[in-house]
Amino acid sequence: MSDLTVIVEPGRHDIVVTRSFDAPRDVVYKAMTEPEYLARWWGLKESETVIDRADVRPGGSWRFVERMPDGQEHGFHGVVHDAVAPERFVWTFEYEGMPGHVCLETTTLEERDGRTLYTSVTVFQTVEDREGMVQSGMEYGLRQSMEALDELLATMA
Amino acid sequence: MSDLTVIVEPGRHDIVVTRSFDAPRDVVYKAMTEPEYLARWWGLKESETVIDRADVRPGGSWRFVERMPDGQEHGFHGVVHDAVAPERFVWTFEYEGMPGHVCLETTTLEERDGRTLYTSVTVFQTVEDREGMVQSGMEYGLRQSMEALDELLATMA
Repeated sequence: MSDLTVIVEPGRHDIVVTRSFDAPRDVVYKAMTEPEYLARWWGLKESETVIDRADVRPGGSWRFVERMPDGQEHGFHGVVHDAVAPERFVWTFEYEGMPGHVCLETTTLEERDGRTLYTSVTVFQTVEDREGMVQSGMEYGLRQSMEALDELLATMA
Repeated sequence: MSDLTVIVEPGRHDIVVTRSFDAPRDVVYKAMTEPEYLARWWGLKESETVIDRADVRPGGSWRFVERMPDGQEHGFHGVVHDAVAPERFVWTFEYEGMPGHVCLETTTLEERDGRTLYTSVTVFQTVEDREGMVQSGMEYGLRQSMEALDELLATMA
């Protein structure tokens, strides 16, 4: 069982996600920021994720394309404000299916008794944008991604 | 008299600022995004602002340094998520005196009867960060900046 928590309080701009992973922090950071690893866990189980770019350093940018089994493609992109390996990165996030709606995502990794505690704080431009993300089935996708990440981490140790 | 409004509702992550300017939208956009103009209005009246970089295009970055009369320097920087001249730009913002506290700023310009309506929506990573910005005297600085911008725009028409 995973210890995923997704905190969505009414009327606020943020979503806070926490989860722990059974791997050292530097390995989790690598899996979350390097293209060859990102492609292996990001997105839904049945989809294929192509990492167009993932230049996770201050001033860098990223773009991922999720290819669904029916051939549909969903693009996501952003710019990297900050990246301090293996502790923290801050980037913007936009789903290309809803252009102009941008959020700011801060990911923090902490080591706790040999495991890594992941915290992500996402703030949206409006409360309505956050509701849209919640209603898009974000938690379902997140759960799948993180299970795939568990499996990947087990092979990287 | 200016029509500046600063909306700060309790317990939220955002600050919404609106104001109108007596100039066409493309002129206001230019003044807000090009280094030679930014240096002439950004920051407090008694300070001097040096534009280290202002590359306002998707994937670009910016950094401004405000030099106070006593010689103190305050740096600010961020990355540009989006820029659609003369309508809108979205960038991250960090005051280097409080490293790690980042916000996302969306600036929108609309033309209304020959004037330009400016709207800026800033979302902070936490409600506490937003309170810090409000208490730093942000509105005082903003008011001064915008008056300097009025003066600059009058020379650009």
